[in-house]
Amino acid sequence: MLIVMRHGANEEQIQNVIDTIKKKGRDAHVSKGDMHTVIGAVGANQIDPRDFELLDGVKEVLKISSSYKLVSRIFKPEDTVIDVNGEKFGGGYVGLIAGPCTVESEEQVEACAKKLSSYGVKIIRGGAFKPRTSPYAFQGLGEEGLKIIRRVADKYNMAVTSEVMEINQIPLFLKYVDILQVGARNMQNFNLLKELSHVNKPVMIKRGLSATIEEWLMAAEYILSGGNREVILCERGIRTFERATRNTLDLCSIPVVNKLSHLPIIIDPSHGTGLRDKVAPMSMASVAAGCDGLMIEVHDTPDCALCDGAQSLYPEQFKDLMEKLKKIAPVVDKKMSIAV
Amino acid sequence: MLIVMRHGANEEQIQNVIDTIKKKGRDAHVSKGDMHTVIGAVGANQIDPRDFELLDGVKEVLKISSSYKLVSRIFKPEDTVIDVNGEKFGGGYVGLIAGPCTVESEEQVEACAKKLSSYGVKIIRGGAFKPRTSPYAFQGLGEEGLKIIRRVADKYNMAVTSEVMEINQIPLFLKYVDILQVGARNMQNFNLLKELSHVNKPVMIKRGLSATIEEWLMAAEYILSGGNREVILCERGIRTFERATRNTLDLCSIPVVNKLSHLPIIIDPSHGTGLRDKVAPMSMASVAAGCDGLMIEVHDTPDCALCDGAQSLYPEQFKDLMEKLKKIAPVVDKKMSIAV
Amino acid sequence: MLIVMRHGANEEQIQNVIDTIKKKGRDAHVSKGDMHTVIGAVGANQIDPRDFELLDGVKEVLKISSSYKLVSRIFKPEDTVIDVNGEKFGGGYVGLIAGPCTVESEEQVEACAKKLSSYGVKIIRGGAFKPRTSPYAFQGLGEEGLKIIRRVADKYNMAVTSEVMEINQIPLFLKYVDILQVGARNMQNFNLLKELSHVNKPVMIKRGLSATIEEWLMAAEYILSGGNREVILCERGIRTFERATRNTLDLCSIPVVNKLSHLPIIIDPSHGTGLRDKVAPMSMASVAAGCDGLMIEVHDTPDCALCDGAQSLYPEQFKDLMEKLKKIAPVVDKKMSIAV
Amino acid sequence: MLIVMRHGANEEQIQNVIDTIKKKGRDAHVSKGDMHTVIGAVGANQIDPRDFELLDGVKEVLKISSSYKLVSRIFKPEDTVIDVNGEKFGGGYVGLIAGPCTVESEEQVEACAKKLSSYGVKIIRGGAFKPRTSPYAFQGLGEEGLKIIRRVADKYNMAVTSEVMEINQIPLFLKYVDILQVGARNMQNFNLLKELSHVNKPVMIKRGLSATIEEWLMAAEYILSGGNREVILCERGIRTFERATRNTLDLCSIPVVNKLSHLPIIIDPSHGTGLRDKVAPMSMASVAAGCDGLMIEVHDTPDCALCDGAQSLYPEQFKDLMEKLKKIAPVVDKKMSIAV
Repeated sequence: MLIVMRHGANEEQIQNVIDTIKKKGRDAHVSKGDMHTVIGAVGANQIDPRDFELLDGVKEVLKISSSYKLVSRIFKPEDTVIDVNGEKFGGGYVGLIAGPCTVESEEQVEACAKKLSSYGVKIIRGGAFKPRTSPYAFQGLGEEGLKIIRRVADKYNMAVTSEVMEINQIPLFLKYVDILQVGARNMQNFNLLKELSHVNKPVMIKRGLSATIEEWLMAAEYILSGGNREVILCERGIRTFERATRNTLDLCSIPVVNKLSHLPIIIDPSHGTGLRDKVAPMSMASVAAGCDGLMIEVHDTPDCALCDGAQSLYPEQFKDLMEKLKKIAPVVDKKMSIAV
Repeated sequence: MLIVMRHGANEEQIQNVIDTIKKKGRDAHVSKGDMHTVIGAVGANQIDPRDFELLDGVKEVLKISSSYKLVSRIFKPEDTVIDVNGEKFGGGYVGLIAGPCTVESEEQVEACAKKLSSYGVKIIRGGAFKPRTSPYAFQGLGEEGLKIIRRVADKYNMAVTSEVMEINQIPLFLKYVDILQVGARNMQNFNLLKELSHVNKPVMIKRGLSATIEEWLMAAEYILSGGNREVILCERGIRTFERATRNTLDLCSIPVVNKLSHLPIIIDPSHGTGLRDKVAPMSMASVAAGCDGLMIEVHDTPDCALCDGAQSLYPEQFKDLMEKLKKIAPVVDKKMSIAV
Repeated sequence: MLIVMRHGANEEQIQNVIDTIKKKGRDAHVSKGDMHTVIGAVGANQIDPRDFELLDGVKEVLKISSSYKLVSRIFKPEDTVIDVNGEKFGGGYVGLIAGPCTVESEEQVEACAKKLSSYGVKIIRGGAFKPRTSPYAFQGLGEEGLKIIRRVADKYNMAVTSEVMEINQIPLFLKYVDILQVGARNMQNFNLLKELSHVNKPVMIKRGLSATIEEWLMAAEYILSGGNREVILCERGIRTFERATRNTLDLCSIPVVNKLSHLPIIIDPSHGTGLRDKVAPMSMASVAAGCDGLMIEVHDTPDCALCDGAQSLYPEQFKDLMEKLKKIAPVVDKKMSIAV
Repeated sequence: MLIVMRHGANEEQIQNVIDTIKKKGRDAHVSKGDMHTVIGAVGANQIDPRDFELLDGVKEVLKISSSYKLVSRIFKPEDTVIDVNGEKFGGGYVGLIAGPCTVESEEQVEACAKKLSSYGVKIIRGGAFKPRTSPYAFQGLGEEGLKIIRRVADKYNMAVTSEVMEINQIPLFLKYVDILQVGARNMQNFNLLKELSHVNKPVMIKRGLSATIEEWLMAAEYILSGGNREVILCERGIRTFERATRNTLDLCSIPVVNKLSHLPIIIDPSHGTGLRDKVAPMSMASVAAGCDGLMIEVHDTPDCALCDGAQSLYPEQFKDLMEKLKKIAPVVDKKMSIAV
C-alpha cells in the first residue's frame, strides 16, 4: 500500500502516517518527490486503505492490487489444461460444452444428446436445480434431473456439467456430475467455494453480474487455496445500463484473464446475450479473441423449452456454427477437438 | 405481456404470434392502432418474452412487470411495522441498529454495547461469520462470536442482528439472534431465502450490489411466500462506475420502495459509503428522505477494528448524529424512539 | 505516478523502467520493499501510465490522481460563495433556483414567476434551447424564449438561469441570462468550457450522466483556469442499471465534493429522479446531506407542460417543500434566504 | 404507449386515463385482460410516459420504443454501403481506417502513412483538435494538423478522417477531410449533428460512453433527417464498473445494430480497450462478430507518441493482424479490400 501525502503536507502529518503504519506492525518506506511525499507500507495487504485516507495530510491511498497468488501467471506461467472426457480446455485447446438450459425430461435430454453426440460434443450441460428470480417459476427437477442427464450421458459416452447451488448438494453432484458449475449469483458464496476447494472434480466458476475480473480471480483463489487446482472461469456477461441485450458480454475479459492467470476462460454466449440470433456471432468472436472454450445452449425444440428457449440454438444452427468455429480457431493458433 | 408488431407487419405474421400464444395455453387480445398492432398475451407471466422477439414481424415485446404479490402495497396497503425489543421499523417509526462490523472479543462488544445502550440503542449488530473477498483475510469468530454478542446484549437488554450465510447455520442463528440478516451477496441465494421463509423471526434482506429494486422485492417475496411476513429491506449501495465512494448509495430507493411495497426500508450508510465522514450526511439524508430505519457501524476504537474500521463511527460521533436525526425526523412526520 | 514491479522482477526489468522514465525527461525514485519494488516517476502527470503497464516485469501502475488545482480545497480552503441577485450558494447558504423546464409562452412563465416570486424565490430557470434525444421532438423557442424569461424576471426582480449549448450562443446568453448553465451532455465540451472561462457571469456545470466526480471537477477546472472563478456544480443523477428512476441521484457526491473542492454543489432532484413524487424526498435529503443549493422544476400546470411535466412540482407542492426545508437546514448549520 | 392498470383498478381510474389521453389529442384503445386492463394511446410518441405513471390506478407505462425512422432497417432493408477512396464499409465489406491518435508532425504522419499505404490501407486517421479531460494536457495542432495529414494523405493516395468538435470548425474540415468524425463526448451535441446533416461527406458517429444503442441510432437519425445519408456508426466501448480495461467494448452491439439498422457499424478496438496487447484479439473478435469495419491506431514509434501511445500498434503488429483478419473475414462471408 502506498500513501500519497498532499502537496504541502507537514512533517507532523507525515510522521503520523508512519506511526500508524508501525502501530499496525508494518514497516514504512518514505520517498520524497518534488510534489508529493509517498509512504510505502510494506506487507500491508491485510490493512484497510481507508484507515489512512482519513488521516490529516493524506491525499490518497493507492492499493497494490490483490492478493491472489495461486491463480496468478506469476505463480504458474504455463497454461492449466483441464481435460474432461477427452475434451480439453486451455493450452491451445478450445473445449466445448453444449446442451439444454434445464433438464425437462428423459426424452428431451435424449433428443439433444443424440444430436450433439453425433456432432462430436463430449460434454453435455443441463440444469437440475434452477435458481429463479420469482418464487413462482419452474425450479427444476432436482435429483431426478441429475439422474436423467447422467443416464443419457452414459449412453452417449458424454460427460456432464450442471450447477450446484448449496453445500449440502455437493455429495449428490459428485455422484452424477463431472464438472461442478458455480452460478453467477453464487460467485461470492465463499462457504460454497471453500467446500468445492476440497472436491476432486473440476469446478467452473461463472463471473458474477457485477463482479470485477479481480474479484472473479479471487473467487477462483478460494478453490485453489483448498487444494483443487482444476478451475474453469466462465464469462457470461455483466450488468450495465444497456438493455438491448440481457447482459453485456465482456469479451475483452479473455485477453485480460489470459495475461493475469493460467486458468482456462470459456464463454457462455447464450446467457451472455439472451437471444439466439446473437449466439453465433458472439461464439465466433470469442474464439477469435482467444477463448479456451464455449458453453452453448442447444435444445431440440427451443420453442417448447421450459426455460430460456429463446437463447437456445436449434441443433442444426449449432452444427453450422461449429463448422465456422473450426475455421476460425487455427487462425488464432487454437485447436478444437469437435469432429463436425 | 404485450407483443408490438412492426409497422407494416402482415396478417400472416400477426396470426403466427396469436397461434404461438395459444400454443402456450394463453389467450391473445389483438388491438390495431394506426402505427402498430399490439397483441396482449393474457396470464403470460411465466412466458419468456424473448420467445416472441424472434418471430417475424415483431417489433418488440413489453413485459408487464413482475409477479411479486405479497410484498406489494396493492396486496396490503398499510405499512408493515416490525417491532424488535420495542424498537419499531415502519408505520412512521425510524428504527435504529448500531454496533461493530465484526465481533472481535467480549471486551470490544461490551465497550460498544455499554455506550450504545446508554444512548438508548435497543438493537446491536455484529458479524460472526464474515464473507471476505480474499480467502486469506479474517473470517470471523463463528459460533463463539454469536455467543459473545448474545451474552453482552442480554446484559444490556438489547436485541441482536447478525448475518446468516448458510442454510445449515440457521438453527444456530435462531438460538442467538433476533433479526437474521441476509447479505448483499446472498440476496439471490434462493435456497437460503426459502429456508428463511419458514423461520419465525424477522429477516433483513440487503440489496445486492447489482440488484434492481424489482429483483430485491422479488427476493423478499421468497420470504413472504413461505409464511414469514417480517421482512426488513436494507439499501447498502449499488455498484456503478464512480469510485470516489465504495458504492453508490441509492437513496431514491426509499420513496420508490415506499410506493411499491408495505415493507420497511432501512439504510446502511456505513457500507453504502465506506468512509466515516460520509456516514453522518448520508444518515441525515436517509431520514429526510423518509426511511424506516438505519443500521450504523459504531466501534469504540475504530482505529483498531479488525474490519471496516474506516467506516465505523466513534461513539461520540454517533451520539451527535442521533441528536440531529431526532430533529429531522419530525419534519417528515417520523418518530424515533432513541432517547439520546 | 508509481510503477509497482512484480514480485521477482529482475534488475534488468527495473532498470528498463527507470530508463524509460528518464527518456521522458522525468526523475525516478526507487524503493525496494520485501514483496515489490516501487518506482516513483516524479512530475509525471502528463505521462500515460499505460506506457509502463506494457513493460516486462511491471505488475501495475498507480496514478496519483488528477491534476485539478484551482478547484481544489488545498488551493483555496474557504468556501466559494456565489451571490446572484442576493441569493447565495455556498458558505453556509442553501440557494434556490426554480421554474419550468422550458419556456413555452409569456403567460406560462408569468404564471410561474408570480407564484415563485411570492414565495421568495429570487432566481428563475427555463430552457430556451432544448437538446432532445429525438430530432422530431420540440426543440425550444430559442432567442424568443430568452427574451420572454428575461422580461418576466425583470418584472418580478428575479435573476435568470438557462442552458447555453453552443459557443456562438454565448453573446445571446450574456444579454439575457445571469447564470449560464452547461448541460450534462456538454460537460466535456471542452471548447465551450474554454469560452465560458472568459465570461464574467457565473457558470453552472451539470454532472455528465457517466462522469466521475474527478472528471466533473476537471471540467470546472477548465472554467477556472481561464479566469472565471464563479462555478456552481450541479448533480443531476448518473446512469446505472436501475430503471425504477430515470437516473440514480448520487447524493454522496455532496460530502465528497465538499471535501475536495471549495466550489458550491447544488442538486437538481427533478432531472435526478424524473418523477414528481420523488422530488420532495430527494430535496429534503439533499439539504440534510449538506448541499449548497437546489434547482427544482415548478410549473403552474404541469399536466399541460410541453416537456418534463411529470417531474415538475405544482406551485403549492413547492411551497410546502420550502417550509420543510427551512426546518431541516438549521439542523445542518445551513441558512436559506427564502421567505416562505 | 401502453398504460397498464393495476389489478383491481376501478372504472373511474380507467376513465381518467382515457380522458387524459384524449385531452392530449390522441385516441385510446382499451383492452381488458383477466389481470390487467391495458390502454393503448395511439400516435403517442411525443407524450411523456411519466404523465401517466402518476395517475391513480396505473401500474406502469410501457413505451413502444423509439422514433427513429430513417436509420431503421424497416425503412431501408438493404445495407447502406459507404465507399471512401475505394474502401467500402457495409454490404459485405469490412473497411479499414488506421493511423496515429494525433497528428504530431509531418515526419510522424509521413512515417505512418508510408507503412500503412504499403499494406494497402486507403484511409488514414489522425486527430488535430484533441479534447482532453485536463485543461493542462496537449490539445492538438489545430488547422496545422489538418494541413499536414491532408498533404501526406495526398502523397500516398489516401483519404483522411479526423474529429470535428465544433460547428464553426466544419468549413475547415470540409476542406481537408474525407470522413468527419463525431467524438463520443459529442454524440448528443445535437446542434453539431444538425449542421453535419447538411454536409455532403460521410460522418462517423462514435457511441457515447454511457449511450444506449437506441440513443446512438437516434443521434444518427439527426444526420439522416437533414439529408445526409452517409453515416458510419463506431463502437468504442462503454463505461462500466470494470477497470481492468479503460472501457468495456460492447461487441454484441454489432449484431444488434445490424438487425435494427442498415447503417454500417465499425469498431475502434484501440479506444475500446486502451491497451495495445488487447487490440489484436478484439479486432479479430469484431470481424468474427460481423462488423463492417475497423479503425485502429498505429504509430511508427508508439513509445514516443504524444497521446495514447500505449494503445497504438507498431506497424508490424498491424500487418500481422491484417493477415489474420483476411483469414477470418471469409468465414463470416465478408470481404476485405486490404492487400497485405
